[in-house]
Amino acid sequence: MSAPAHRPAGRHLLADFYGVADGVLKNAAFLEKLLTESAVKAGAHVLFSHFHAFGEEGGVTGVVLLAESHISIHTWPEEGFAAVDAFMCGEAQPEKALDAMRGALHPERCEVRLMARGEAGILSLAASGS
Amino acid sequence: MSAPAHRPAGRHLLADFYGVADGVLKNAAFLEKLLTESAVKAGAHVLFSHFHAFGEEGGVTGVVLLAESHISIHTWPEEGFAAVDAFMCGEAQPEKALDAMRGALHPERCEVRLMARGEAGILSLAASGS
Repeated sequence: MSAPAHRPAGRHLLADFYGVADGVLKNAAFLEKLLTESAVKAGAHVLFSHFHAFGEEGGVTGVVLLAESHISIHTWPEEGFAAVDAFMCGEAQPEKALDAMRGALHPERCEVRLMARGEAGILSLAASGS
Repeated sequence: MSAPAHRPAGRHLLADFYGVADGVLKNAAFLEKLLTESAVKAGAHVLFSHFHAFGEEGGVTGVVLLAESHISIHTWPEEGFAAVDAFMCGEAQPEKALDAMRGALHPERCEVRLMARGEAGILSLAASGS
């Protein structure tokens, strides 16, 4: 595909979801569809996805590669836990992908950290005076 | 494969590499081999990898999925920039993967941030009194 060119600057969201129902955290097909749709809602362009299920009672690990970087998820159904990250450069909005995932997975609690990457990281370091 | 079971706690390294030679940043096969070998050096178990090259003069985006989570890279050869992340739970050591990548890519400058994920994140929040 002809991928859009993006500056080497982006936003990287790390989200830890606690208290998620175990059924969805074991369902690789559901999670692949969810992350792919979440990427599109963020305005990103999907290149490829791959999801791996660790057996019937195990979790899922999966990634959607984007023209704008990636979204990944790793789940621990026995703990109701999922670790998500959404890294996007250019005009894509990783917050929208996270909102879509949170809306579908209904975590009881969610811890989100936003990290600036590349030039955005340099600019934020300069702004904070460090 | 029979993947080892890991607690939902891990370390997520985000590394921004500046001043990397453009040749290696365009070379998807080289980067796939490098990230796969780096994962093994970290003590992780590789499940799958996929690397995408954005045309002859473009960058590369790629991921190695691990039993312990993932390593990814996104490159901007025209800027000499690469955004790397290495997320590993259990006993694997993402620092070792990062050392291997840094040793092969020779960035002029490298900014690394270490984020605790899952239970480790909760513990570090408690330790910092927040």
